[in-house]
Amino acid sequence: MPEAPASHVDLLERPLFAHLATVRPDGAPQSSVMWFAWDGSRIRLTHTSTRQKFANLAREPRVALSIADPDDQYRFLEIRGTAQEIEDDPGAEFYRSLQRRYGMDYPITDADVRLVITIRPDRFVAVQGGSVVGSNT
Amino acid sequence: MPEAPASHVDLLERPLFAHLATVRPDGAPQSSVMWFAWDGSRIRLTHTSTRQKFANLAREPRVALSIADPDDQYRFLEIRGTAQEIEDDPGAEFYRSLQRRYGMDYPITDADVRLVITIRPDRFVAVQGGSVVGSNT
Repeated sequence: MPEAPASHVDLLERPLFAHLATVRPDGAPQSSVMWFAWDGSRIRLTHTSTRQKFANLAREPRVALSIADPDDQYRFLEIRGTAQEIEDDPGAEFYRSLQRRYGMDYPITDADVRLVITIRPDRFVAVQGGSVVGSNT
Repeated sequence: MPEAPASHVDLLERPLFAHLATVRPDGAPQSSVMWFAWDGSRIRLTHTSTRQKFANLAREPRVALSIADPDDQYRFLEIRGTAQEIEDDPGAEFYRSLQRRYGMDYPITDADVRLVITIRPDRFVAVQGGSVVGSNT
């Protein structure tokens, strides 16, 4: 697996917001704002089994995420990857860990349909000031 | 064309950053952070004829953009649309208008390959606090 560019790895380590692009069954893209976790090599997302994004991923596991630095949105990281595993989240433990990462705490009412989506990065593209400054494949 | 939801139209009017999802020739998605202009009904982007995103759009004109409120990233708008026109940008006049909108001023060295991409919205999805609060088609 490619390594995250050192210049931009902070964007994965900080509790920022990722814009996740998936491809719908009709071939059109979809984009939404998501929490994520980073373990140094993979990205994990929480989702439910009942929504469109899950149906998209089951059919087309390739995704792209872009994460901008809120302090300088001209600095961003794109991660192209593949949804490698989609697993149950017993007791919504992973979802709860994301709540802690993002400083939120509220009742989880859909724990029974919560999933953990693990994304293996295939390529990183690091952008600064509108120019690509690094690309690891 | 659908109307932008009144609750979220400010995200189009303000000079914020859109995450643009396109689909690559191999069917995988791509996501990047872009300036945009909004004229009340259509979104316009600047781009060059030499990059991958242009090749993507020429093949698959359907796109998605997501724009988060920097003051509350749990509030965001997704726009699914179609690249309706791709035109030259003589003298990079449109690009210059985007520089003014975003408070930037620097020499434009690639004016000869600059394009204006006009996107017709097909659907708006307005999200607040993790829940869809409006969807106009």
